[in-house]
Amino acid sequence: MSQNDFSAELLKRAEHVEEILKKYLPKEEGYAKTVIEAMNYSLLAGGKRLRPVMMLESYKLFAGDNADEAVVEPFMAAMEMIHTYSLVHDDLPAMDNDEYRRGRKTTHAVYGAGMATLAGDALLNFAFETAIDGAARGTKLASYDGDTDNRYFAALKILSKKAGIYGMVGGQCADIMAENATDVPKDKMSDILSYIDENKTAALIESSLMIGAILGGASKDSVSAMEKAGSCVGIAFQIQDDILDIVGDQAEIGKPVGSDEKNNKSTYVSLNGMEAASAKVKELSEMAEEILKEQGFEDSFLGNLFDSLIYRRK
Amino acid sequence: MSQNDFSAELLKRAEHVEEILKKYLPKEEGYAKTVIEAMNYSLLAGGKRLRPVMMLESYKLFAGDNADEAVVEPFMAAMEMIHTYSLVHDDLPAMDNDEYRRGRKTTHAVYGAGMATLAGDALLNFAFETAIDGAARGTKLASYDGDTDNRYFAALKILSKKAGIYGMVGGQCADIMAENATDVPKDKMSDILSYIDENKTAALIESSLMIGAILGGASKDSVSAMEKAGSCVGIAFQIQDDILDIVGDQAEIGKPVGSDEKNNKSTYVSLNGMEAASAKVKELSEMAEEILKEQGFEDSFLGNLFDSLIYRRK
Repeated sequence: MSQNDFSAELLKRAEHVEEILKKYLPKEEGYAKTVIEAMNYSLLAGGKRLRPVMMLESYKLFAGDNADEAVVEPFMAAMEMIHTYSLVHDDLPAMDNDEYRRGRKTTHAVYGAGMATLAGDALLNFAFETAIDGAARGTKLASYDGDTDNRYFAALKILSKKAGIYGMVGGQCADIMAENATDVPKDKMSDILSYIDENKTAALIESSLMIGAILGGASKDSVSAMEKAGSCVGIAFQIQDDILDIVGDQAEIGKPVGSDEKNNKSTYVSLNGMEAASAKVKELSEMAEEILKEQGFEDSFLGNLFDSLIYRRK
Repeated sequence: MSQNDFSAELLKRAEHVEEILKKYLPKEEGYAKTVIEAMNYSLLAGGKRLRPVMMLESYKLFAGDNADEAVVEPFMAAMEMIHTYSLVHDDLPAMDNDEYRRGRKTTHAVYGAGMATLAGDALLNFAFETAIDGAARGTKLASYDGDTDNRYFAALKILSKKAGIYGMVGGQCADIMAENATDVPKDKMSDILSYIDENKTAALIESSLMIGAILGGASKDSVSAMEKAGSCVGIAFQIQDDILDIVGDQAEIGKPVGSDEKNNKSTYVSLNGMEAASAKVKELSEMAEEILKEQGFEDSFLGNLFDSLIYRRK
C-alpha cells in the first residue's frame, strides 16, 4: 500500500470511528447538561482514533467471515472514552496544566477545572456503562474459557485492567514520581522508564488489540500474541517520540524540539544514546511484524498501521 | 431493637465490610506504589460503610437460605470504592477544596492535587475491575432476563449507570451549576434541588439496594421497589441534613450550624419552610417503610437502618 493510499485509508477509518462514537455519545439535555457538553467537547476534539481503529482491525482479522461490527463497537467507543478522559485529567492545572491540545482549548480551559475533573470522571464511568451495556446486549459468542458469555467478561476484564493501576494509571503514577525524582541510579531509571512506556503508552494499545482479538474469536495464545505486538508497538512509538524530540522538526511534531532535554527528563535516548534507541525501535518493529506474520496477518492494514505509528515523522 | 443494640450491630457490620474491603485492596508495591497508597489511604478513612452494609442486607433478605456472601462481596467493595473516589475528587482544590474530612487530612492534602486526581481515577477504575472480575468468576445465578449470566450483567449495569451522568455525576454537575446560578425562579430551583438530592445523594443508595436484590434473586418488580425505597431514604436523608443545618448542634453534625444559609445555598428548608420539610421527611420515611413491608421485610435490620439514616442526629 502506498503512503498516500494508506493515509487516505486511515482517514476513512478514523471517520468511521467518529460515526460510531457519535452513536454512543450521551444527549446534551437535563440538569447534567453541562458535564455532558464537556464530555462531548472532549471526545469530539479530533485525533486519529488509533485505538478504536486498531481494535476494529484486530476484531475483523480474527472474526473473518463471521465479523459483525456491532459486537465490537461499544468497546471501541469505550476505549476512546478512556483515552479521552486520561487526556482531560492530564491537562488539568493540578497535572500538566495545558491550555491547548492540538490547537484547541483544553476542557478545563473552557469549562473550568472542577467541571473538567467531573467530565473526566463521567467519561471513564460512561466508558464502562457503554461497554457493559454492549456486553449485556451482545449476541452470544463462542466460548473462550468454558463459559457461555465469557468472551464479553474477558473483554471487560482487559478493558478495566489495562486502564487502571496495572496499566495506564500505573504508568501515569510512575511518570509523575519520575519527574520529581532526583539521584535515581541509571539502571533503576531505565527500569522505571520501561515501566512507564509499557503502561502509560502501550497498555491501551495492547488492550485495543486484545479486545478485538477476544471478541473476534481468537484463542488465548493469539490474544497473548496480540498483547505482545501491542507492547512492541507502544514502546517503539514512545522511543521514536523521544528520538523525534531530539532530531525532529518543531513544526512537524508540534512541540519544541529538545523539550524533554530542557525539562531534564530522562528518556530512552538520554539514557542509552541515539544509536541504541534507533536499534531498539527497529528491533521492536520487527518483533511486531513477526507476530502479525505468525498470526497469518502478514499483509494486513494493521501491519501498515504499526509501521506508520512507529516510523511516523509527526 | 433498642438504640444501643442497633448501634452495636451497625458497628459490627461496618467492621465486617472493612474486612471485605481489605481483601480487595490492591497491594502497595511496584512503580505505581504511590497511587495505590493514596487509594488505600482514601478507602481506609473510616466511615460507616452504609452503602455496602445496605447492599449486603438487601442481598441477604432476598437470597434467604441461598445466600452466599461471595456473590455480593466484590460489588460491596466496588460500591465503597466509587463512593470514596467521589469524596476524593469532591475535596480537590478545583472542587470544594477541603483539607480535612472527619478530622483527617484529605487525600490531596497528603499526596498533592495531581496524585489525588489520579487516585480518584484509580479508585473508580478499580471499582469496575473488582466488580467485573467478581462477576466473571461468580457462580451461576438463576436467570433474571432470559440469559444465564444476566444477573451479573444487570448488577454491573446498575453499578455503572447510577454512578455516572444518569446518577451521581449528574447530581454533582447540577450541584456545581446551582451554586453558581443566580435569579433562578423558585419552582425551577425546587426541581433542580430534587434532581440533586435524587442523584447526588440517593443514586448510590438505590444502586446498593438494587444490586443486593438482583444478586439475591429478586424479581424485576422487587428490584424496582428497592430502587424506590432507596430514593425515599436518600432524599429524606438529604432534607434531614438541611433541617439539621438549621436546628442542629454544631458539635453533633460536625459543620457550622447555618452554613448552608451563610453560603446562600438553596435547600428544601429554605424553599419550603421547616414545617413542610419535616412533613416531607416523615412522608418519605413512611413510604420506605411501606415498601419494606410489601417485600416482607417488616422487622428487618434494613428498616432500622433506614430509620437511623433518616432520623439521625449526627
